[in-house]
Amino acid sequence: MTLSVAVSGASGYAGGEVLRLLTSHPHVQIGSITAHSNAGQKLGGLQPHLHALADRVLEPTDVDVLRGHDVVFLALPHGASAEIAAQLPEDTLVIDAGADHRLTDSAMWEKFYGSPHAGTWPYGLPELPGNREKLTNAKRIAVPGCYPTGSILGLAPGFTGGVLQTDDVVIVAASGTSGAGKSLKPHLLGSEVMGGMSPYGVGGLHRHTPEIIQGLSQAAGQDVSLSFTPTLAPMPRGILTTATAKYVPGTSAEAIRAAWETAYGNEQFVHLLPEGQWPSTKSVLGSNHVVMQLAVDEAAGRVIVVVAVDNLTKGTAGGAVQSMNIALGYPEETGLTVQGVAP
Amino acid sequence: MTLSVAVSGASGYAGGEVLRLLTSHPHVQIGSITAHSNAGQKLGGLQPHLHALADRVLEPTDVDVLRGHDVVFLALPHGASAEIAAQLPEDTLVIDAGADHRLTDSAMWEKFYGSPHAGTWPYGLPELPGNREKLTNAKRIAVPGCYPTGSILGLAPGFTGGVLQTDDVVIVAASGTSGAGKSLKPHLLGSEVMGGMSPYGVGGLHRHTPEIIQGLSQAAGQDVSLSFTPTLAPMPRGILTTATAKYVPGTSAEAIRAAWETAYGNEQFVHLLPEGQWPSTKSVLGSNHVVMQLAVDEAAGRVIVVVAVDNLTKGTAGGAVQSMNIALGYPEETGLTVQGVAP
Amino acid sequence: MTLSVAVSGASGYAGGEVLRLLTSHPHVQIGSITAHSNAGQKLGGLQPHLHALADRVLEPTDVDVLRGHDVVFLALPHGASAEIAAQLPEDTLVIDAGADHRLTDSAMWEKFYGSPHAGTWPYGLPELPGNREKLTNAKRIAVPGCYPTGSILGLAPGFTGGVLQTDDVVIVAASGTSGAGKSLKPHLLGSEVMGGMSPYGVGGLHRHTPEIIQGLSQAAGQDVSLSFTPTLAPMPRGILTTATAKYVPGTSAEAIRAAWETAYGNEQFVHLLPEGQWPSTKSVLGSNHVVMQLAVDEAAGRVIVVVAVDNLTKGTAGGAVQSMNIALGYPEETGLTVQGVAP
Amino acid sequence: MTLSVAVSGASGYAGGEVLRLLTSHPHVQIGSITAHSNAGQKLGGLQPHLHALADRVLEPTDVDVLRGHDVVFLALPHGASAEIAAQLPEDTLVIDAGADHRLTDSAMWEKFYGSPHAGTWPYGLPELPGNREKLTNAKRIAVPGCYPTGSILGLAPGFTGGVLQTDDVVIVAASGTSGAGKSLKPHLLGSEVMGGMSPYGVGGLHRHTPEIIQGLSQAAGQDVSLSFTPTLAPMPRGILTTATAKYVPGTSAEAIRAAWETAYGNEQFVHLLPEGQWPSTKSVLGSNHVVMQLAVDEAAGRVIVVVAVDNLTKGTAGGAVQSMNIALGYPEETGLTVQGVAP
Repeated sequence: MTLSVAVSGASGYAGGEVLRLLTSHPHVQIGSITAHSNAGQKLGGLQPHLHALADRVLEPTDVDVLRGHDVVFLALPHGASAEIAAQLPEDTLVIDAGADHRLTDSAMWEKFYGSPHAGTWPYGLPELPGNREKLTNAKRIAVPGCYPTGSILGLAPGFTGGVLQTDDVVIVAASGTSGAGKSLKPHLLGSEVMGGMSPYGVGGLHRHTPEIIQGLSQAAGQDVSLSFTPTLAPMPRGILTTATAKYVPGTSAEAIRAAWETAYGNEQFVHLLPEGQWPSTKSVLGSNHVVMQLAVDEAAGRVIVVVAVDNLTKGTAGGAVQSMNIALGYPEETGLTVQGVAP
Repeated sequence: MTLSVAVSGASGYAGGEVLRLLTSHPHVQIGSITAHSNAGQKLGGLQPHLHALADRVLEPTDVDVLRGHDVVFLALPHGASAEIAAQLPEDTLVIDAGADHRLTDSAMWEKFYGSPHAGTWPYGLPELPGNREKLTNAKRIAVPGCYPTGSILGLAPGFTGGVLQTDDVVIVAASGTSGAGKSLKPHLLGSEVMGGMSPYGVGGLHRHTPEIIQGLSQAAGQDVSLSFTPTLAPMPRGILTTATAKYVPGTSAEAIRAAWETAYGNEQFVHLLPEGQWPSTKSVLGSNHVVMQLAVDEAAGRVIVVVAVDNLTKGTAGGAVQSMNIALGYPEETGLTVQGVAP
Repeated sequence: MTLSVAVSGASGYAGGEVLRLLTSHPHVQIGSITAHSNAGQKLGGLQPHLHALADRVLEPTDVDVLRGHDVVFLALPHGASAEIAAQLPEDTLVIDAGADHRLTDSAMWEKFYGSPHAGTWPYGLPELPGNREKLTNAKRIAVPGCYPTGSILGLAPGFTGGVLQTDDVVIVAASGTSGAGKSLKPHLLGSEVMGGMSPYGVGGLHRHTPEIIQGLSQAAGQDVSLSFTPTLAPMPRGILTTATAKYVPGTSAEAIRAAWETAYGNEQFVHLLPEGQWPSTKSVLGSNHVVMQLAVDEAAGRVIVVVAVDNLTKGTAGGAVQSMNIALGYPEETGLTVQGVAP
Repeated sequence: MTLSVAVSGASGYAGGEVLRLLTSHPHVQIGSITAHSNAGQKLGGLQPHLHALADRVLEPTDVDVLRGHDVVFLALPHGASAEIAAQLPEDTLVIDAGADHRLTDSAMWEKFYGSPHAGTWPYGLPELPGNREKLTNAKRIAVPGCYPTGSILGLAPGFTGGVLQTDDVVIVAASGTSGAGKSLKPHLLGSEVMGGMSPYGVGGLHRHTPEIIQGLSQAAGQDVSLSFTPTLAPMPRGILTTATAKYVPGTSAEAIRAAWETAYGNEQFVHLLPEGQWPSTKSVLGSNHVVMQLAVDEAAGRVIVVVAVDNLTKGTAGGAVQSMNIALGYPEETGLTVQGVAP
C-alpha cells in the first residue's frame, strides 16, 4: 500500500530534506507540497537539487490542503505547527519537525518560547530507551531538535549505564549554517560565515537547552545540570558536539566504554566508532547515521564524547522519516540514505 | 540475478563514490574491494561515510583478486588500469574510471600522457549521440573524465544541431578539490585551498583537453578548436563549466535554444534548466544529474553555456554506474541517487 | 599636513575596507563616517574587525555631514553617489567607489544602468596608460569596478603591445561573495554559497561589461569585442579572472611575454609572476597587489592570462586610496598594506 | 637604530606570518630568512603573499646563518629550536615560536613531549599578570601556543579576580587548519577539511593542555583542573575558544563582569566586547587583537567565556612581535596590524 504524504514548509531546508528522503521511500507518494510566501512557485526554482520534483507547484500551507493525506510533515516556525496540527484529523500521522510538542514541562516551554504550551507528543528519538515503544503506532510525533539529537545520543548511555554524574554536564556544539534556516540575516551571509566561527545563545539561552536537559534527565532518571554553548561553523551542514560529564569516581575506562557499546550495539544508525577513530561531520553528511567516540580524561575526571550528526538528516528529516517508519510498522531504515556523501 | 562486483582503488575518492552508489544498486553485490598501499586496512577508517561497508577489509589490487567477478571497476592511476584490464577475462565487464582507454587518437594519447596507448574502449557518455548504442552489451567501458563530462555535454547540442561554429571554443571550468584526488601535495592542503582560487594546466596543457576536443569533434563531425582552462575552487566537489562558442551568424536565439531542448528533452540525467534559472554545482552534489543554462550574447556573437556537474558522481562514478546499467540492460537510473544533497 | 577624510557607506564592505586602509595612512585622519540605515550605531557592532574605530558613531550620509572634509569617499549604491557628489565643493577631492562616473559613453551607461548619465571622471586605474596623468591633481576620481580591475589589467598589455587581436576576447571570472555586498538575498546566504559555484549576468548582461570593454578599447585604440561571464565562488574575497584573446598570428611567445613585462616592469602593485608560477587569489588577500601569469596556446591561437586581485582592496578601496595618493602627490603605496594575509 | 632580524622556518605558516608582520615594523630589517628542505628556493614561490620579499632566497636553518643578527625568530619543530637556541650568543634576542621553553614543569614536558626538557624562558603573554615585567629586557622569549593564548586570556581574569573555581574548567576550541602547519597529512587535505569538523587529541592528550593549566594556575595561584578538547574547523585561520568554569557561589554577574573589565581595561590588544556583542574569529583575522565576551549561566553555575584569536597573529607571530617590542623597549603595538581583515 502506498501512503499519501504532505510536506509543509517545503521551501525551507528541513522541508527540502524531508522531500529528498521521501523520494526514495518505497511506500509513500508525495502528495501536497506547501509553503507560505513561496506558494504558487515551482519547487525547481527553490530546491533545485530535488530534480524529480522540479515541476511540482507549491500550494499554500493550510489545513484544507494538508487534510486528506495519510501522513503530514510539518516543517514550520514554532507556534505555526501546533495551530495546524490541532485541526488535522486524529488518525492522520502528523510529524512535527518544529519545537511545539517536544517539551514535557510546560513551564520550561513558556520560559524559553514565551507562548502557551501546546502539549507533548511522543519524541522521535527511538534510540533513547523507552521512546521506540511510544512511537509505535503513534499518530503524533515530535521530531527532536538538531542539537538535542547529537547531545542526548552522545551522553545518554553514560547515564543509563550509571557511569556519569548528573551534576555538571558541559556541551559545546558547532553547527553548519543550515541549522539557522534560510533566514535573511546579515550574520548568515556567506561573506560573514566563510572563514570564521562565532557563538550564539551563550549562557543557557538557546531554546534547545531544556530539550537536551529533558532527554539526558530521562536517561539518568534524575535532573541533569547542563551548560550548553552552540557555535556557528563555516559549513552548510553537520553538527559536531563535544559533550563532557564527570564520571562516577572509581569507574574503569572499560566499564565506561561498555556503557556505550551496550546502548548502541544493536542500533543501525548510531555507532560508537572503533577505538582510535574520531568522528567527522563529513562522514555523516546526507545520511541518517550518528557516529561518536569517547575518551576518559582521568586528570580531569571527565568523559568526553564527541558526536557527529547531519543536522538536516538524522537531526531533522531523517529522524522524522525513521520515526514515521516506526509508527507505520516499516523497517526503520526504509527510504533512508544509508551512506553519507563525502568528501 | 545478482552480479558480483569488484572495486579497485577503493581508498580513493573515485573508488569511494563507486562504492557509495553500488550499495544502493539492487542487482549487484559488492565483492572484492581493493587498494594499493592501504590493502589490509578496514574501509571504515579510510571511507568513514560508507557505514554499511565499514568492516570490509581492503584486498590488494591485483588480477587474481579482481578475476572472478562479473563486473570490475578500475579507479586507478593511468597506466595501471590498462595493465590490469589486459589480464581480465574478455567476458568480464571492465569499467575503467581512468584515462587509459578514452582517446581514439593514439598520437594525442602519447603527447599528453607520454606512454604507449592501450587502445580505445566505448566511451561512457551515453548522452552523446552514437555512444549509447556502443555501450549496450559492451564488455569494456572507458568512463569519461570529469571535465569532459560537463564540457562535452554543455556544447555538443550546438554542434549536432549545427548552430555553433567549430573554430574557436573557449572553456573555463572551476573544479572542487576532490578532482585532484587524495594526493598529498602542498597546494591541496585545506589551508591553501580554502578562501582562494587558482588555475592550473593553463594553455592547453591539461590532459582532458584532447578528450574534450574529441567529444566535441564527434558531435560536430569535424575538428573543433579549443582553449581550455581549469581552475581549482574552494569546495570539495562539483565542477562549474563555462563553455562558449561563436554561433553561426544569423541563427536566432530560439533556434539555438531549440538545439539543446531537442538534444536533452528525453534524457533523464541531463537538463536545460527553465529560462531564467542558472545552475549551481550545489544542486547536483551527490547526484548523477547535469544541469545547464545558456545565453546568447549578440554583441559578442557567442553562445555561453554554463554547466554544473558533480565531478565524482556523473563526472566519474555515476557515469560509470549508468554505463554499467546500459551494458547490462538495466534501466539507466538503477542504483543512482536521483536527488542531490543540498544545501 | 594631515587631511580630514569622510567615508560614506561605512557599514558596507567597500566602506569598511576604505576605513581599514585609511587607519594605516599617515597623512589622513578619519573624520565623518556615515551610513544610511545604520546611522546612529557604533561602528564596532557593524565592522568588528576595525578595532581602532569601534567606538565611532555612524552619522547619516548627507551632504552637510560630508562637506568640510578634504577628501570624501563615496561607497554608495549607483545613483546615490552622483547625487551627493554634485553638491560637494569643487575643491574637495571626491572619490567614488560606485559606478556613476566610470563610463565615457552615456548611451552605454543608460543601456546598462537605466538612468541618466552623471558624467565621466578620471578613472582610478593608474596602471592603464594615460590614466596616471589624469589622476594627478584630480578632484574627482571614479574608482574602477572590481571585475574591470583584473580584466583590464590582465589583457591591456597585449593590446598596448599590439600582440592581441581585438575581435574576440573571452573573460570568465570567479568572485568572492563580498563583491555582491551585504545584500540580504537568499542566494548569498552561507548555506547556499559554501560548497558550490554558480554564474550570473551571463550573456553580456553584467554591468561591468561595458566598463571592461571601455578599458580594453582604450588600451587597443580600437573597439574590442568581449564575452564576459562572472561566477560566484565560495570564498569571501578575491577575484580570479581568466582572460583570453587571440594573438596576432606569427607572434612569438617571447614577444607576447615581453609585452606584459614591459607594461608592468615598473609598477609596484601589478606583477607578471615568474614563469611557472600561477596566481592564487589567496596571495593577494587584503593587499593592493595584482598578480598574473600568461600562457600561449598555439593549438588554439590564444593567449590566456589568469589574474588574481582582491576585489575589496585593489578592486575597490585599495585602488581608491592609491588614486587618492596620486591625486594628492603622495607616493602611491602610502597607507596600503604591502603584504597579503595568507593562508 | 635598525635591528637585523633573522627568521627561521620561513616556509611555514608561523614563519611566514612573522615575516608579514616584520615587513611593517619600522625598527627592524629582515636579514636571513631560513628553511630546512626549502633552502635555496625563492620565498616568492613558497609564500606568494609576501610580495615585498618575493626575490629573497631561503638560506639553510643553521647556527652560522642565524648568528650575527640582533634578533632571531625560531619557527621550528619542537626540539629543533632548543638545539639551535643553545648555540646562539647570550646577547642575541631569541624568540621561540615553538614549545621547547614554555613549560616550567619538566615532568610535564617529558610526559607530553617525550624528550628532555630544555629549560624555561619568559613567557610571551604580557597580558597575564607578572609576565610583562619578565619580558622587559629579556634575551630569550617563549611564544605561547595558539590554543593557550585564547584559553588563558579567556579565563585568567576570573582567577586573578577570585570569582571562578579552579576545580573544573572545561575548554572546547575550534581551530583553523593553519594551526596544524603545512604537514602533508590526508586529514588536512582541502577535500577532507572543507564542509566538516572533527576533534583530535581528545581526553587531555593535546600538548597544549599542560600549558593552559600552567597559565591558568599562575593566574589562580593554585592548581587548576582542566578538560581541554581541540577541534579542527573548516577555515584557514582563527581559533574560537569556549571556556567555562564554575563561579564562586554567590558572586553577582556584575562582579564577574568587573573582573574581566579590570583585567583588560588598559590592554590595547585584549578586549571584553560590549555586552550583547559576541566574538567572531573573522573580526581578528590578520590582527593581533583578542576579543571575548562572557555569560553567566546561573542554572549551570558556570561562567562561559568565548574568545576569538588569530592563531597565526596574536596566537603566534603577533604575540612574538609584541613580546619583542617589550623586550626591546618599543611600544607594544609597533609593527602590528591594528585592524583585522574582513570579510
